[in-house]
Amino acid sequence: MADHPPGIAAPGALLTDLYQLTMLQGYFERGMFDTAVFEFFARKLPACRNFYLAAGLEMALDYLEQLHFSDAELAWLDGLGRFSSAFLDYLAGLRFSGEVQAMPEGTLFFPQEPILRVTAPLPEAQLVESRLINLLHFQSLIASKALRSVLVADGRLLVDFGLRRAHGAEAAIFASRAAYLAGFDGTATVLAGAQFGIPLYGTMAHSFIQAHDSEELAFEHFARSLPEGLLLLIDTYDTEAAAAKVVALAPRLAASGIRVRGVRLDSGDLGEHARRVRRILDDGGLKEATIFASGNVDEYLIARLLEEGAPIDGFGVGTHLDTSADAPALDCAYKLQEYAGKPRRKRSEGKVTWPGRKQVFRRFDEHGHCCGDTLSVEGDRIEGTPLIVPVMRGGRRLQASPSLEQVRAYVRGQVASLPPALRRLPAAEAYPVQVAPALEALAREADRLIGLATAGPAPSAR
Amino acid sequence: MADHPPGIAAPGALLTDLYQLTMLQGYFERGMFDTAVFEFFARKLPACRNFYLAAGLEMALDYLEQLHFSDAELAWLDGLGRFSSAFLDYLAGLRFSGEVQAMPEGTLFFPQEPILRVTAPLPEAQLVESRLINLLHFQSLIASKALRSVLVADGRLLVDFGLRRAHGAEAAIFASRAAYLAGFDGTATVLAGAQFGIPLYGTMAHSFIQAHDSEELAFEHFARSLPEGLLLLIDTYDTEAAAAKVVALAPRLAASGIRVRGVRLDSGDLGEHARRVRRILDDGGLKEATIFASGNVDEYLIARLLEEGAPIDGFGVGTHLDTSADAPALDCAYKLQEYAGKPRRKRSEGKVTWPGRKQVFRRFDEHGHCCGDTLSVEGDRIEGTPLIVPVMRGGRRLQASPSLEQVRAYVRGQVASLPPALRRLPAAEAYPVQVAPALEALAREADRLIGLATAGPAPSAR
Repeated sequence: MADHPPGIAAPGALLTDLYQLTMLQGYFERGMFDTAVFEFFARKLPACRNFYLAAGLEMALDYLEQLHFSDAELAWLDGLGRFSSAFLDYLAGLRFSGEVQAMPEGTLFFPQEPILRVTAPLPEAQLVESRLINLLHFQSLIASKALRSVLVADGRLLVDFGLRRAHGAEAAIFASRAAYLAGFDGTATVLAGAQFGIPLYGTMAHSFIQAHDSEELAFEHFARSLPEGLLLLIDTYDTEAAAAKVVALAPRLAASGIRVRGVRLDSGDLGEHARRVRRILDDGGLKEATIFASGNVDEYLIARLLEEGAPIDGFGVGTHLDTSADAPALDCAYKLQEYAGKPRRKRSEGKVTWPGRKQVFRRFDEHGHCCGDTLSVEGDRIEGTPLIVPVMRGGRRLQASPSLEQVRAYVRGQVASLPPALRRLPAAEAYPVQVAPALEALAREADRLIGLATAGPAPSAR
Repeated sequence: MADHPPGIAAPGALLTDLYQLTMLQGYFERGMFDTAVFEFFARKLPACRNFYLAAGLEMALDYLEQLHFSDAELAWLDGLGRFSSAFLDYLAGLRFSGEVQAMPEGTLFFPQEPILRVTAPLPEAQLVESRLINLLHFQSLIASKALRSVLVADGRLLVDFGLRRAHGAEAAIFASRAAYLAGFDGTATVLAGAQFGIPLYGTMAHSFIQAHDSEELAFEHFARSLPEGLLLLIDTYDTEAAAAKVVALAPRLAASGIRVRGVRLDSGDLGEHARRVRRILDDGGLKEATIFASGNVDEYLIARLLEEGAPIDGFGVGTHLDTSADAPALDCAYKLQEYAGKPRRKRSEGKVTWPGRKQVFRRFDEHGHCCGDTLSVEGDRIEGTPLIVPVMRGGRRLQASPSLEQVRAYVRGQVASLPPALRRLPAAEAYPVQVAPALEALAREADRLIGLATAGPAPSAR
């Protein structure tokens, strides 16, 4: 492994589906290089989500800017014997030269609303489908999940603990990023700190305790080795007994200028243990020591614990966050909406799409809460704030990327605009997304062009 | 992006949790370099799984062989201001020098059974926890899920279609590999073909159809561009109408020596469409054309379609496979079981572990079906075939990696050993895993050493 700056290397142009390459060969042979318009959007919300939060745009733009086939990749493709040398020569020179319009990262979005549009020569716009979905889907999935914990945690510390059960390396660091973007305070995953500058948090593992002949000794060694940010894990053998050991140890540490910052619970009834441990710490003079909880934590458990008044100051959220366990995938797609100036749409059962280049217009009520979106064609003049903005032209970003801190600030504004019903965990009535007459007319035009009768009911919003 | 051979680059040593590094500094400062034994195992089976299938060992061994901190990584760690220069110097020279014992990839396993053991100086064995879990968890998760489709598909073609909704790049290619290992026929993900030599499959997307002014023209262009392995996607506008167009086109293609191999369905009631399309193809003289189905396919749908007698010859399985959607994570852990010659175990509520270096002994009945496992200490002489074998010593593999084809053959043997009840999709009675007296005695010894009363009931097997 060659040394490289900390971070995960891009996987290259072969991270695509085989059919993209076979279709590209078809386009190439027929000279089909006209401008195509594709849009990425999600279909129905799962019952356990009231909104989506857009994320992954930065990685999507990185991917488009860097897209090329290396010599090694071309040689490997050549070896498959499926592709002509003329086509491989074409691939050797292929770069992404198109435009991208998108909702900024951190924007709330709803079913049928595109969050990204690619406008480019057909082969370029086609090839990038698989990886663009892979990037936008996953980070939006995790950001949407993470924001639910942020909404119920009411300011308590939230840390991503999910590396070990995330689905591979990229999932781990992209989940850290998506969670931080949505309002988490940081992550335990070191590489996410290195690659994205996300604040790192960490305590200690059971193995540290177990490697010592006694828990007391383990606590003292750990405290003296890591005097700052000291959190002691107290559930290895007996949680309350360990809390008493922390109380007993604290004066000796204090004599060396070391303060116990808090304890971590990781098993059992977290609320009940937190109450008992709080009492032990308070009675032992450690009123300022915090209680941090982990172990199977998700937004439902956070909400229940806090409703019960559990004295917990922060949560490590791992597996449920990094896998979006209650909805591990979104029903999303990247579909051709226009080719060579003609509107197009898919009419497959249950998967009918709206054609053309679209814009989403969002309206707000007197409290600043969003109260309804309209999906229409780009350039339509209707009420509401347009959410989709130009971000790339000629294959290059139009402006420098916002920092993650800027995106977090933007998300706080989005959160402030969430209607109260959508902030709660249970399924709310679907947020209203209506379709403008101009878009309905375009759909009729697309059907007519392909020789079909006009489709029936519009795709539903939930 | 520098050119590199097709494949995903290793993410490096910083793909770990912060606490591993802080604990390592603690071990370093206290001179705790004695031999530690950690084991990776899964706890309870989810109700939607009757077995686990071990996968990911090869990547785990690659990781251990390559483990080191690059200069850039060390510089970045130094910049955090958390670590002493003596400790960073130690990290600079750190390599994995230990032993690994493991179940071969493709072995069936059950709750509480370790599939991998690391025996190494404590800091080395500790540091690798996060990434080892990340690697073994995900591939075992997907292999276990994939084998369920293999069991119900009864020889029909199975192809991984999951790249777009897999959780990132590594998840996509590792899912392709785990599915292929478990018996899938191939994948659509090109990079998985390049990196692992997995057979590639692909058809065409709706966009190819939509980019043409008519479906007939799209079919013909595609057929002439890709005369081999020709599968036409027929659900873009109207499935049965498209099947009739394929029939009409076939003689003209045949005149050019091009044979329509089959069609793909991707929406609607797949069974009903398959029956109607089969009739249209048969009546049109295309009796040998196959029907391939995709779109929200998982093992439950495959089982139902085949029970109904749907004439489907193959399936593309995507999102449900690559995210293991009905169980997107396994409850698994990597725990310290021995340090400096002393058995250790965790006693946390609901998470009690069995200490020591363990072996799994599997018994078989007269049909060759496995009928019960015993968990005991390594070296115990009891009935059954020991499943855990040495794979690494001194930080180096003991032998060359088996090919994926060899692992697939081994999996076929494992499948032949599955008792009938465990082959079915519904939850079966838990497979019997018993704990040998020698291991129970070691657990008492571990508790005594740490000054605890002996624990209550053994961890349950389901």
